[in-house]
Amino acid sequence: MSRRSPSHDSTDVVAGGGLLHRRALLLAGAVSLGAVEVGAGEPAVDGAPEWMKSQGAPLSGYGGRAPSTDKLQRIIGKVEFPGSGSSRTPLHLLSGTITPSSLHFERHHAGVPAIDPTRHELLIHGLVKRPLIFRFEDLLRYPTETRILFLECSGNSGALGAEEPAQVTAGELHGLLSGTEWTGIRLSTLLDESGVRPDARWVQAEGADAAAMTRSVPLAKCLDDALIALYQNGEPLRPEQGFPMRLLLPGYEGNTSIKWLRRLKVMAKPAFSREETSKYTDLLPNGQAEMFSLGMGVKSAILRPSFGLDLKDRGYYQISGLAWSGRGRIRKVEVSADGGASWAEAALTAPVLPKALTRFSAPWDWSGAPAVLMSRATDETGAVQPTRTAWRAKYAGGRGYHNNAIQAWAVDARGRISNVYA
Amino acid sequence: MSRRSPSHDSTDVVAGGGLLHRRALLLAGAVSLGAVEVGAGEPAVDGAPEWMKSQGAPLSGYGGRAPSTDKLQRIIGKVEFPGSGSSRTPLHLLSGTITPSSLHFERHHAGVPAIDPTRHELLIHGLVKRPLIFRFEDLLRYPTETRILFLECSGNSGALGAEEPAQVTAGELHGLLSGTEWTGIRLSTLLDESGVRPDARWVQAEGADAAAMTRSVPLAKCLDDALIALYQNGEPLRPEQGFPMRLLLPGYEGNTSIKWLRRLKVMAKPAFSREETSKYTDLLPNGQAEMFSLGMGVKSAILRPSFGLDLKDRGYYQISGLAWSGRGRIRKVEVSADGGASWAEAALTAPVLPKALTRFSAPWDWSGAPAVLMSRATDETGAVQPTRTAWRAKYAGGRGYHNNAIQAWAVDARGRISNVYA
Repeated sequence: MSRRSPSHDSTDVVAGGGLLHRRALLLAGAVSLGAVEVGAGEPAVDGAPEWMKSQGAPLSGYGGRAPSTDKLQRIIGKVEFPGSGSSRTPLHLLSGTITPSSLHFERHHAGVPAIDPTRHELLIHGLVKRPLIFRFEDLLRYPTETRILFLECSGNSGALGAEEPAQVTAGELHGLLSGTEWTGIRLSTLLDESGVRPDARWVQAEGADAAAMTRSVPLAKCLDDALIALYQNGEPLRPEQGFPMRLLLPGYEGNTSIKWLRRLKVMAKPAFSREETSKYTDLLPNGQAEMFSLGMGVKSAILRPSFGLDLKDRGYYQISGLAWSGRGRIRKVEVSADGGASWAEAALTAPVLPKALTRFSAPWDWSGAPAVLMSRATDETGAVQPTRTAWRAKYAGGRGYHNNAIQAWAVDARGRISNVYA
Repeated sequence: MSRRSPSHDSTDVVAGGGLLHRRALLLAGAVSLGAVEVGAGEPAVDGAPEWMKSQGAPLSGYGGRAPSTDKLQRIIGKVEFPGSGSSRTPLHLLSGTITPSSLHFERHHAGVPAIDPTRHELLIHGLVKRPLIFRFEDLLRYPTETRILFLECSGNSGALGAEEPAQVTAGELHGLLSGTEWTGIRLSTLLDESGVRPDARWVQAEGADAAAMTRSVPLAKCLDDALIALYQNGEPLRPEQGFPMRLLLPGYEGNTSIKWLRRLKVMAKPAFSREETSKYTDLLPNGQAEMFSLGMGVKSAILRPSFGLDLKDRGYYQISGLAWSGRGRIRKVEVSADGGASWAEAALTAPVLPKALTRFSAPWDWSGAPAVLMSRATDETGAVQPTRTAWRAKYAGGRGYHNNAIQAWAVDARGRISNVYA
């Protein structure tokens, strides 16, 4: 048996630190990333492993995971008050763009209510011609729409505001982010039925959890692309995602997509509730606070390689991550292996959908020298992900919600990876 | 409280039986599908339900379903021999286009093997310059691609060949069909590394189950869009979907996408194994059999309304179903409510992806008269889904694999739905 080392065409190098062109191919016959060549004197076929010698497990009604993958879990944060807290998607261990519902991040303010769907009702009232109550069963008859969308907590990546870079996995850092397929009813259909009055401008949404979580949302958004989501990834909503129904506001900060939705009050002005005054506001250097900064900015993160997934040998790696924007589609993602001195354009996985996660990847030939990996996304409006320095300058103390700054992973000569401010 | 009845603009009617234009809107203020109007004398807000009065359930590492939705299970068929059989996706109860991995259909020939991924190996041998063995861990370093794809057993919808139409749900009829996001390594990358010899034309794939399931696949397909799939819907493959790796051949009949893949033998001719001679062949009226009819045809099915989901009242319904083609993208889906006498074009949910499930929907105003619902798909190559009569004429006894005929649901005056040959 023999191992051969990776190789590529030197003309494929397009940026510093060994970044290759996004369409660089492995060279036939010259490259191996670890396959073992079977020599002439060796058997071409191994004997059958023991799992081929008896019948396997039977069919099942609802499938589960391989025992060896059971450790793939949401990352549960410190719970300071009962019922309040969050769990994060282990993004650094997942692939593709669809998050399984079981691993979608959670953020609760009073735990997950156990709702009887036959008794749950949605009330639309306030500045409407006809206040209406919709029972869950009623809503099942309405026309539905399906969209693949990201959902991100506006507190995601908040650790990047700390003075020292946190040495945590990409999932711990960026995992208040998930992407799934949602099916629901256009909120505009229900608002039309209720008849919105001319002076209406805002809608206050309230959840049926013990926190009665409420947020005020512009009416224009509710009439644009808002959904009353009933299904996620094909199935009825999961309890921790709002069963039996949630508001879903594509591209908006996560907590406006009120879970366990029970009430929509149409109003002339926002309610200025706790969640939009003492929380979820962005303090500016001049002491004023930005309120209702609801749309999530253009952002990307490298998920592999990343902290905890150290490199074993030099040679070929696929740099892989996710990019997204609350403003629409991702236009491009650039990757740097030299701390931002030079950039190479990454490949984007089709389909590139608006307000959805886009997987990017870039081939990289690591020479064994220290490197600093970064990604920078641009969306279809031309908005570019800011540097950490530029982002910090906008906010008091360089901290806050909506942190979409470029984040960097340093690789040392031994292949160990750390989070750095570069 | 009062209930109002559904209504629409009469100019929206575009086909017989009350089919409306696919972009027909519910008329503001005139339509209700069941909402209850809150009268002046009634309270605008109900009292808080009991689940708002105490803290809910805590965060969890791997989320589960609402107890009331636990009955949503795969439909397990009769098992005639231990380890052999299938379970179907309950398509009539799901929404959107992504099938949760737990509900992806199964078809096993010797059960689900319990594979130790650290000991599993993939051998590429035969007409290659360098036979290679890839351990699972080796493959994790290769570049990956992500695609949303359908997978359909070529025996799907086979019950439509029976003399009398089976009175079963859409899931029982068409549920050997699922759609998920797959991430894997292009097989061409591994074949290039092994160095395919000039006389090679076929590849025999073998699984590590006790049936050592094998199929022969054209080399051209392996070099085109075939994947060695390692992830499904973001997570590592599930055991019943081939953990730790499976072959994935977009648009081909399901059983060629060999699960638990352990061996790829490059050959000049097919192996003519049991699964491509006594099984998975299509007998023609002249007594000859079509072999290696691997690509799945253009097809669609209405999933709601359907058997078991009877209509309660006349009025508005969303007709909803799925369309797919092994040849590429769906171009259009037409729907009929009068047994094929007239057709209306359905709306397609974006994105319409090649070799993937496409959700279609059509608004329908049911007058209460008997109706026969049908759907007919056309793909981007211009191929049109055949009628049952046309399909049957192609095959001996009007039965066999690859049944992509138009299927019909009859609605009687009481709203009861049955499967009919129309």
